[in-house]
Amino acid sequence: METANETPLTPIAFLERSAQVWGEKIAVIEGTTRLTYAEMGRRAQELARAIAGSGVRPGDRVAVLMPNVTEMVIAHFAVPLAGATLVAINTRLSPHEVRYILEHSGARLLLLDHRLAKLAAAACTDPGPVECVVTPGGEPQDGQTAWGTFLDRGLARPDLPWTVDDERSPIAINYTSGTTGRPKGVVYTHRSTYLNAFGELLHSRHTTASVFLWTLPMFHCNGWCMPWAVTAIGGTHVCLPEVRGEAIWSAIRDHGVTHLNAAPTVLTTIMATAGDVRPAQPVVVTTAGAPPSPTIIEEMTALGFELVHVYGLTETYGPYSVCEAQEAWAALPTAERARLLARQGVGMVQAARLRVVDEEMADVPADGATVGEIVMRGNNVMQGYYRDPDATAEAFRGGWFHSGDLGVLHPDGYVELRDRAKDVVISGGENISTIEVEHALMTHPSVLEVAVVGVPDDRWGESPKGYAVLRPGHQAEGPDLIAHVRSQIAHYKAPREVEIVDALPKTSTGKIRKAVLRDTAWSGRTRRIQG
Amino acid sequence: METANETPLTPIAFLERSAQVWGEKIAVIEGTTRLTYAEMGRRAQELARAIAGSGVRPGDRVAVLMPNVTEMVIAHFAVPLAGATLVAINTRLSPHEVRYILEHSGARLLLLDHRLAKLAAAACTDPGPVECVVTPGGEPQDGQTAWGTFLDRGLARPDLPWTVDDERSPIAINYTSGTTGRPKGVVYTHRSTYLNAFGELLHSRHTTASVFLWTLPMFHCNGWCMPWAVTAIGGTHVCLPEVRGEAIWSAIRDHGVTHLNAAPTVLTTIMATAGDVRPAQPVVVTTAGAPPSPTIIEEMTALGFELVHVYGLTETYGPYSVCEAQEAWAALPTAERARLLARQGVGMVQAARLRVVDEEMADVPADGATVGEIVMRGNNVMQGYYRDPDATAEAFRGGWFHSGDLGVLHPDGYVELRDRAKDVVISGGENISTIEVEHALMTHPSVLEVAVVGVPDDRWGESPKGYAVLRPGHQAEGPDLIAHVRSQIAHYKAPREVEIVDALPKTSTGKIRKAVLRDTAWSGRTRRIQG
Repeated sequence: METANETPLTPIAFLERSAQVWGEKIAVIEGTTRLTYAEMGRRAQELARAIAGSGVRPGDRVAVLMPNVTEMVIAHFAVPLAGATLVAINTRLSPHEVRYILEHSGARLLLLDHRLAKLAAAACTDPGPVECVVTPGGEPQDGQTAWGTFLDRGLARPDLPWTVDDERSPIAINYTSGTTGRPKGVVYTHRSTYLNAFGELLHSRHTTASVFLWTLPMFHCNGWCMPWAVTAIGGTHVCLPEVRGEAIWSAIRDHGVTHLNAAPTVLTTIMATAGDVRPAQPVVVTTAGAPPSPTIIEEMTALGFELVHVYGLTETYGPYSVCEAQEAWAALPTAERARLLARQGVGMVQAARLRVVDEEMADVPADGATVGEIVMRGNNVMQGYYRDPDATAEAFRGGWFHSGDLGVLHPDGYVELRDRAKDVVISGGENISTIEVEHALMTHPSVLEVAVVGVPDDRWGESPKGYAVLRPGHQAEGPDLIAHVRSQIAHYKAPREVEIVDALPKTSTGKIRKAVLRDTAWSGRTRRIQG
Repeated sequence: METANETPLTPIAFLERSAQVWGEKIAVIEGTTRLTYAEMGRRAQELARAIAGSGVRPGDRVAVLMPNVTEMVIAHFAVPLAGATLVAINTRLSPHEVRYILEHSGARLLLLDHRLAKLAAAACTDPGPVECVVTPGGEPQDGQTAWGTFLDRGLARPDLPWTVDDERSPIAINYTSGTTGRPKGVVYTHRSTYLNAFGELLHSRHTTASVFLWTLPMFHCNGWCMPWAVTAIGGTHVCLPEVRGEAIWSAIRDHGVTHLNAAPTVLTTIMATAGDVRPAQPVVVTTAGAPPSPTIIEEMTALGFELVHVYGLTETYGPYSVCEAQEAWAALPTAERARLLARQGVGMVQAARLRVVDEEMADVPADGATVGEIVMRGNNVMQGYYRDPDATAEAFRGGWFHSGDLGVLHPDGYVELRDRAKDVVISGGENISTIEVEHALMTHPSVLEVAVVGVPDDRWGESPKGYAVLRPGHQAEGPDLIAHVRSQIAHYKAPREVEIVDALPKTSTGKIRKAVLRDTAWSGRTRRIQG
């Protein structure tokens, strides 16, 4: 509750301030449209009033299904301004997956971009679990509410206060495939998104002159809290609904981009499409999802980019750690420097420590060799999994959040990832649960047994590969199985290859030894995760 | 209380992190000595253990009387690390004033720099209210404890955890003369100093490469929270026990200073002592205490400094507002730009709004002309006055903190100070209560009636001037009265001039019309407060 000497920490207050202080400044650029901060503030109020006018009560969930467009930036303020919790859904999911999230979150509304009207319609049949409101510009589907009709509901209502009663209340739920195969809803609070925003601004060296290019999807960990952070500092959001190399280079040139956040696969795209033109200003690239390879660090630096390497999970509001560059590293040979910079590093300034622990929660020695699990805690860790107290308790066992990621602690106190949690493939910065893919494969009538592991992929870092044992007497080829998986779940989760095998390697207790499959696929590579 | 997903906000955690992450980096430079962050962390623990070993309990107060030395930076972490509240005392106070603060705060210990041993001894006679512990290097006075003896008390104790149970508990009490003549203890919390530190880092554009020159006294609003902020970002503190122009220029040259915070009087000193050498790197100067004059802004810019103008009070953790520079201002003539930049501006990113209100707490029109009182609220406002619920209630009447400062609101939403609170003189960035000076004058046997107001002072911005009516039949000259005041209170508070007058201007109800005296003194100046 706000008092004379305490204000609840909430990132929606950032827009209240920037709408007043930076009223005439460009807040959002998308294509040829420009929005000032004063207009952004008015649009957020307009949308919030329409949400409230639609019967959404404080604490209700409001889902959004949008690419990186202006309305998506605004929704990050408007939904919590209406007292509701934002559920930003991955636009690449299948209708079945979208529906699961809508139902599990109990969303009261789905705000969607017109380009995704068909996906929403396919997710909301017989009967739809939620009212779908579609932005102008495309072909609304049957039963979908037009944006203008929706906004009219808020016309007679007063503006809403830019605050929240309790800073520990949820501001967003982000669904991740995690390791169990079913999406889990990761609950973010007002307090922690506010604090994470400050940390990101400091570590990526933002100023009021920041021009931030959106290549990271906002539906992914709320774009690492950057919709709030960039607004806090009064920077300019440059929206890029489709991430292509030429579009990135045009934006850097045309809008004077100073910052972008991206997975290494995006950096690969940037390098592949670099022409002769170099950025006219230094561009800070904050990267995570996979450690950037020495090659990437070297080439990006030569192209005029400054890399900040961070690490985190959906459960840690995006980045939790940063590989702080020590002064002494500047004098090292590039390859050695890149090796040090590719580590996951240390907790960010607003986060607590990173620990690497054994199964009894004892710290592993700082020898750069003993592998343990990376655990985190504090304000930069989720409130919990929505409506899943068991998974929450399991994730927080021992009083620390268990990342499921394996790493080592170096003598200098920096953590380095040595393996992803055994069941997750990180492909292009997105988590793919191998269990989920296995479940899809298993629905094919000819399949007896399967295993999916991450294998090296030059474009995506990793991609899932399937190994399938067929039922006796059945016949199927890899491409058949891949097509089957694509009919079940999002295409990006489907394996690029499914190998038909006679048997899978197993432990004496009958568990599939995925490590054996992975080791074969990764043999000859020095590091399991790569950019 | 710390849990798996919530850490109490406390700036002492910044040193835990920097001691680990920036262990080999220089944390503090003082003269020819250098301290790394690892050493600073160890020294803070050593001091905290000695404090605990001296019987100080959580919640107790520990006072410090030190110039800007290494031990003063460390004390900002060690005292709260021991669970105690830091009371940093102005080193220019008289023994009587020091004693008042020691007694009012109920401090259990006074940690003092050897250069101030005599002041402490004079404050602590018959009997001393507190144990005095003096740093090595000078002549300890009778009864003072040597630093080494003190540290020995902590030798057998374990290190203390870098956290606090309740982020709303006090971290410091800063005594200000305020407007009532008696020092009031302004209570700062762990939570708000943590948040203020982030705001200062962002607005002054700090990075891990920051080299911060201490010209602002750390006993003043805890140096605007910069002992904590600079440590958070892993920058380097450059201590300057005495603020002289040559020393500032040497530090800028020798240590590559990138940032300093200072009142405009210090800027005047910098300009006056500028030789041919320019800073090799941009230096961000964050200034407050009085608005920098257009001349200062213009000259400092030409010398290679970038000015950030902030405004606040002891009650607002130092800076609360910042004059954010709009892009369009860059194209304006220097004088016009300077006029805009000299305004007090808008709330900082971690602060709430600035309001200018009339006596019914209604906002004045944003016309740049209607004068009202500046009020503030939120996390950047003190918890209250220590052991003074009446003054606290009065300061927070209407649910906002009343600054006592008068200002106007411009159409662009920026606030500009038009007059200081009527009873305070801001001289060289320090508050001087005119009532306090009047009380001292009144103790002279020949004085009948007095008034003290701030008058223009080329060096200090303002200085107090006295007007005295003598008792019938008595004789005294101005210099006699000044000497008398200097025997009573700190020398810097003494008037530069006392004019003997026949009568003071008064209202019909008998109140002295100080405005008339001020108007005469300030006639011909366009702005009442100047740098």
